[in-house]
Amino acid sequence: MEFQVLQGGLDVVLGFSSFGVHCGIKKDRNDLAVILSEVPATAAGMFTRNEIKAAPVLVTKRHLEKSGFLQLIVANSGVANACTGKKGEEDAEWVAERAAFHFGLQDRSLVAVASTGVIGEFLPLEKIDKGLQHLASLLPKQKSSREAAKAIMTTDTFPKERAVALSFGGRIVHLAGIAKGAGMIRPNLATMLSFIVTDACIHREDLESMLREAVDRSFHRVTVDGDTSTNDMVLFLANGASGVTLEGESSMRFFREALFFICEELAKDLVRDGEGATKFVTVKVEGARNEEEARLCAFTVAESPLVKTALFGEDPNWGRIMAALGRSGVSLNPERVSVVLNDVLCVKDGVRAQGVSREVLKKAMEKKEIVICINLGLGNASFEVWTCDLSLEYVRINSHYS
Amino acid sequence: MEFQVLQGGLDVVLGFSSFGVHCGIKKDRNDLAVILSEVPATAAGMFTRNEIKAAPVLVTKRHLEKSGFLQLIVANSGVANACTGKKGEEDAEWVAERAAFHFGLQDRSLVAVASTGVIGEFLPLEKIDKGLQHLASLLPKQKSSREAAKAIMTTDTFPKERAVALSFGGRIVHLAGIAKGAGMIRPNLATMLSFIVTDACIHREDLESMLREAVDRSFHRVTVDGDTSTNDMVLFLANGASGVTLEGESSMRFFREALFFICEELAKDLVRDGEGATKFVTVKVEGARNEEEARLCAFTVAESPLVKTALFGEDPNWGRIMAALGRSGVSLNPERVSVVLNDVLCVKDGVRAQGVSREVLKKAMEKKEIVICINLGLGNASFEVWTCDLSLEYVRINSHYS
Repeated sequence: MEFQVLQGGLDVVLGFSSFGVHCGIKKDRNDLAVILSEVPATAAGMFTRNEIKAAPVLVTKRHLEKSGFLQLIVANSGVANACTGKKGEEDAEWVAERAAFHFGLQDRSLVAVASTGVIGEFLPLEKIDKGLQHLASLLPKQKSSREAAKAIMTTDTFPKERAVALSFGGRIVHLAGIAKGAGMIRPNLATMLSFIVTDACIHREDLESMLREAVDRSFHRVTVDGDTSTNDMVLFLANGASGVTLEGESSMRFFREALFFICEELAKDLVRDGEGATKFVTVKVEGARNEEEARLCAFTVAESPLVKTALFGEDPNWGRIMAALGRSGVSLNPERVSVVLNDVLCVKDGVRAQGVSREVLKKAMEKKEIVICINLGLGNASFEVWTCDLSLEYVRINSHYS
Repeated sequence: MEFQVLQGGLDVVLGFSSFGVHCGIKKDRNDLAVILSEVPATAAGMFTRNEIKAAPVLVTKRHLEKSGFLQLIVANSGVANACTGKKGEEDAEWVAERAAFHFGLQDRSLVAVASTGVIGEFLPLEKIDKGLQHLASLLPKQKSSREAAKAIMTTDTFPKERAVALSFGGRIVHLAGIAKGAGMIRPNLATMLSFIVTDACIHREDLESMLREAVDRSFHRVTVDGDTSTNDMVLFLANGASGVTLEGESSMRFFREALFFICEELAKDLVRDGEGATKFVTVKVEGARNEEEARLCAFTVAESPLVKTALFGEDPNWGRIMAALGRSGVSLNPERVSVVLNDVLCVKDGVRAQGVSREVLKKAMEKKEIVICINLGLGNASFEVWTCDLSLEYVRINSHYS
């Protein structure tokens, strides 16, 4: 069984319509998106593990817990509505209430709200209300996943959409997602919003467990700068509009693979579009005692400013990889460590590999995609993370953001 | 009792002489330093906690453990002699052996060796041998702490020396240190070398406990980029040349304060001279449940790339401080958190403080010294760390280092 990768995003999924507009939070770009299901959809969500959670995170969690159904997602960029206290929560509830009103939904708990942008500012409620009214007049007739994907961008340079179709005995199911990322990206979710929808009918428990697993295998393997945001959210909605109910182990497995694909591609898009990124870097740690130690090593290397700046400068300074491994907190046997940089063995038994020339290594570093493969020589566990380099542009972007 | 701060460095300490020369490891700057005591000195050392330890770290630890005495420190910059395996260790032992020979010492275990520079390269032994021979012909007649301090610099922009004199009932004791830092700086020592000497006579156990405490209160509070080096070392030598033996609680306390002063000033110098640093930043966390949680919060804020780039851009984006606190792993009550930026209260009860204007905050951020004072509102423990901003220059320096 193979799924088919489709062009475009959410528009391919039956019974969902989405759009994005400029409502005036930002200067001139899209800043308000909605995703509407024609019927209440089974829903699952994952939220930031940051102890300081933005108001929309708290509100959406609450709505989701109430019934397990969602029918509308409202997401804005420009203002994060984080560190805004009680008023921030009231504002988020008000947005959900107004959205339910404009879209004619029974209950505001069917509305999820999400925000990304500057922390500490309040939402401009009037502007959002007008924007919602405008969007309600367009949907579901007019729809554009791309405009929605654009409306959740902050420092992203391109909208992120992925879609696939799966055939179950001739009956077609669609699955698609959009995401935004760019900065404050690391697992435990980042300023990362992703909304995934399908027209399959799926039981809520299955939806939840599939999402958890997919996020672990995708968004939780991504790091741009090690900073975790207050606003992260991944939502997964299934509205059953295809008429296909997912049941049975083999169907589930097939669908799960498609979901992994969507999440992995969206997660990699986040890294490809990491703030100032000039390289896509895979850090693979093998030969660890257990997955947790492999994970620790991989993230320490992937987040080392010295490793990241060397990647930016295409400087084959593998010593920095070794230094990062050594401070990861994992007990190592240096004499067993090997490092392969884009297929060039540069460290063997903990020291410079014989015969490797700086020129060959330098050449390998010039590629746009870099794979750092580390073997600890201690066991059989492995872990892989995706990251980017630390460039001048990252500092430029982030020194003048708010 | 007050100690007197002196100009200059190691030269003021009786019975010690030091010098630095260019022996040819680097292109044209000093790259080899020695510090000689006229008699074997009681010695204590602290070493990197990186699991991957450079050869000189292993060798010096061994020498120190052997007898507890040191008479000569040999330090080079340019090559770290890290990840160089068995040959690296043999090389470091050879350097100690040759140094003992040139300086006429009984045993090479009286020699400490230290290195800083590129990882993975071998030491150029012939050059170092000639350099040592040259240095042995100069010392102790000619001496210059400043030349020694220069010889251990890598990306440092100024040599770091501190000296004080203490009077014990009219009898004078001297205490002085040199250090290098600049990058790969964070506690558990960093590519940080520091050599501290005194002409007091001190028991080894006292020397060790004082050094441990002083390093905890100084070098372990410093972070530039969160990367811990393979080569860090702090050595503390006491040769007794002043004729004053430190005994009794009040004398010890007095001396200890002077040692803290030397270590704190050297540690702050490391931050002032952090790679590309344009700001000196103190992150003070108060109101924590315990010191460990205060420490975790302080370091997470101090090492957040988003906080550091905002500091560089003088952007009063306090939301990033909140986001960093939230991901520190410490359980928080957001509604109790307050943040004061250079005396301007910007967060109260977890939200923007009333009446604070962006202009006032922006003005506060323009200062060269920034104090971020965070109160968690959970208890009475506190911790303070010193760091710098993340500038374009940091990336420039580190993308083309090796």
